[in-house]
Amino acid sequence: MKKNINIAIIGLGNIGSRLYKEIISKKKDIGLKTNTNINIIAISAKNIKKKRSFKFRKSIFFKNPLDITKNSKVDIVIELIGSSDGISKKVVESALKNKKHVITANKALISKHGDNLTYIAEKNRVNLEFEAAVGGGMPVLRTIKDGLATNKINKVVGILNGTSNYILTQMQKTKKTFKNVLKEAQKLGFAEPNPKFDLDGSDVLAKIRILSSLSFNKKISKNICLKNGIESIELKDIDMAEKLDLRVKLLGITEIINNKLFERVHPCLIKKDSYIANIDGVMNAVILEGYPVGESVLQGEGAGPGPTSSALMSDLLSILRGNIKFPFGIPSTKRKKIISYDKNLHSNSLYLRFEVKDKPGVLSQITKQLATYKISIERLIQTPDHKMKRASIVIITHKAKELNSSKCLKSFKSNKNVLKLPTLIRLF
Amino acid sequence: MKKNINIAIIGLGNIGSRLYKEIISKKKDIGLKTNTNINIIAISAKNIKKKRSFKFRKSIFFKNPLDITKNSKVDIVIELIGSSDGISKKVVESALKNKKHVITANKALISKHGDNLTYIAEKNRVNLEFEAAVGGGMPVLRTIKDGLATNKINKVVGILNGTSNYILTQMQKTKKTFKNVLKEAQKLGFAEPNPKFDLDGSDVLAKIRILSSLSFNKKISKNICLKNGIESIELKDIDMAEKLDLRVKLLGITEIINNKLFERVHPCLIKKDSYIANIDGVMNAVILEGYPVGESVLQGEGAGPGPTSSALMSDLLSILRGNIKFPFGIPSTKRKKIISYDKNLHSNSLYLRFEVKDKPGVLSQITKQLATYKISIERLIQTPDHKMKRASIVIITHKAKELNSSKCLKSFKSNKNVLKLPTLIRLF
Repeated sequence: MKKNINIAIIGLGNIGSRLYKEIISKKKDIGLKTNTNINIIAISAKNIKKKRSFKFRKSIFFKNPLDITKNSKVDIVIELIGSSDGISKKVVESALKNKKHVITANKALISKHGDNLTYIAEKNRVNLEFEAAVGGGMPVLRTIKDGLATNKINKVVGILNGTSNYILTQMQKTKKTFKNVLKEAQKLGFAEPNPKFDLDGSDVLAKIRILSSLSFNKKISKNICLKNGIESIELKDIDMAEKLDLRVKLLGITEIINNKLFERVHPCLIKKDSYIANIDGVMNAVILEGYPVGESVLQGEGAGPGPTSSALMSDLLSILRGNIKFPFGIPSTKRKKIISYDKNLHSNSLYLRFEVKDKPGVLSQITKQLATYKISIERLIQTPDHKMKRASIVIITHKAKELNSSKCLKSFKSNKNVLKLPTLIRLF
Repeated sequence: MKKNINIAIIGLGNIGSRLYKEIISKKKDIGLKTNTNINIIAISAKNIKKKRSFKFRKSIFFKNPLDITKNSKVDIVIELIGSSDGISKKVVESALKNKKHVITANKALISKHGDNLTYIAEKNRVNLEFEAAVGGGMPVLRTIKDGLATNKINKVVGILNGTSNYILTQMQKTKKTFKNVLKEAQKLGFAEPNPKFDLDGSDVLAKIRILSSLSFNKKISKNICLKNGIESIELKDIDMAEKLDLRVKLLGITEIINNKLFERVHPCLIKKDSYIANIDGVMNAVILEGYPVGESVLQGEGAGPGPTSSALMSDLLSILRGNIKFPFGIPSTKRKKIISYDKNLHSNSLYLRFEVKDKPGVLSQITKQLATYKISIERLIQTPDHKMKRASIVIITHKAKELNSSKCLKSFKSNKNVLKLPTLIRLF
């Protein structure tokens, strides 16, 4: 006898609509794999009248999603509203407290409130699943929790934002400016109307916090991290990278250094022929360093209704198979806080681009200033722009301490020959 | 209260010994993740007296592994003997029949008897887990079963044999001959003393059969497949590939064509800058094409005690977490046989290398013969060896039917100007 399981979907945008159809079309397959008989008995969205790509009985539509979370017939609630607080948080909390399993794609919610939500889920003995929050169709959370279950993971490096990666790839391939590529991306649906969090590194940082917590079995960190986005990357930088046999990629990196957590998100210059430099467009990739497994790599489409619904379905099947698990791998009460590594101690080779007035003594001012902050130069390329009486000076440095480099860059603010704050990209 | 679970390890070679130590050292971590208290209460190997890297109480050693499978205290049996029949098959069968969960790394056993063993496991409501049978530390089976759970997978392409890949990579990088590289690989432990099944494609085929069955939800195929190994690849071919901006890789490929199953293993020539061409050394990689997820890639170390024990531990945790699952994703009785695609219908561009006597008319004989079998030439490179009065003729063909190309190649047997059976590598 198949067990009847009732599902609710809250939020019916692109992802929710696709998932609705996916669940209906895979009902038989799911029944076979999990010995259950599933039904979508409740849905909710802002507007019942909005034109949708599927039909539904009016009777399953709930105006107030919180009513769904209290409905005794509902077994699983799938939250697809988004945003870290407000109604999405209320929905997930209420569902868990009412002993419903919860599936969510909401990385902002999990990275901010994941610890508390996990605690509530464990207390009520229900699942809280969030595979779709990180890496789209790439099942990286499941891989860490199950496939690499007892490995000691030391480091995770990833390309985790499709929008940023698409823009960097297009700039490199088409030689169009950041602005123009962004406009195109928005037209194609690869960038949101307000892409701030995708471009400034916030989206990647939310994902990195989830990955850290899961990989290192610690509470989700709340610390201020090294976070730069791609907004200051110009075509000049992409071209210069090409000349140096490098590529620019926005990376999220988390690792343990001396028992401290070092999380960071920033553009990196990476050797052109390396694996990670060749992850193009909206693709995501993650490199995990674990013991005893060695290096593991996952790659897959990072966003969009197809990949995201694939991840949501993997969560659904995990619940239907009866795999009650700790959301973060070990019990909530055993996950400790972890101290942050002082980012100022971190050393990195740097790519610095200065836009300067083309007049005598400017280069000397720059090199002197770098020396003052103990930043030594490995390579220097000066490109004049005679018409504008300007020049670009690109400097590749030897390893420099984060503290020194940030102080040094700030010091150029008062130098009137330096026309704008220098662009900094760290070498990987 | 933690549940007590008793484990037996049968087979204490490199893998078994490493796993023994891994389980002991991770006991606390496992307890945390699964709420169990595990103990290794039985081990078995050919020779109790062999010097080992760990100590054990004599009382847990069983001379006859079958006694372990009948021991009422044992909950989980881990079989690490290897080989498709004989004692390993008896151990696994007996353990399942006695309602013990079984974990095995034995791809030969699973690819040959997997259907029947799965049936026995399901009947006795125990798990049969074999993540370590395919892809070493790369959790590809778990990814298909869980991470991509309801995707419709259409094609799987993989580098699945570390020994072959190591040899091809070393030939390319060091310009040493097949024989010399093989000898070195054996010294380094990357090739077994008898490497036949690694080099002739049998090992990859066993893995491909398991992947097919799991990806397409069908019984394991028993059909004769297109299977070539790397034994006939010479340094000449590697060098020529380099000139053509290609690389030689041994690929396993399985796909559905017109509802029929097409499984094959053979060396391929792949564009030098493609992802798969850059999987070097003992690394394994798999590319899955699924709907709706799109293309998914996994990469990881393919063999050795570290990666293999990582996979075995993921199986162990799956059982300890209580995830009773169908070994091949859906119930045994629902997995149907699948008809094989006729390999003779398959078309491929070919790389052909002829070693010929350097005298007039030979080239004309070859091209005429190819034309007879409707194989048209895209590119031809003749390299003379004046001293030996010989020549190498490399031909890249347009797409040719498998039936025609195999008949054509055989036809050269009777041509005395052709000094050996031509080397064939398919273009990917």
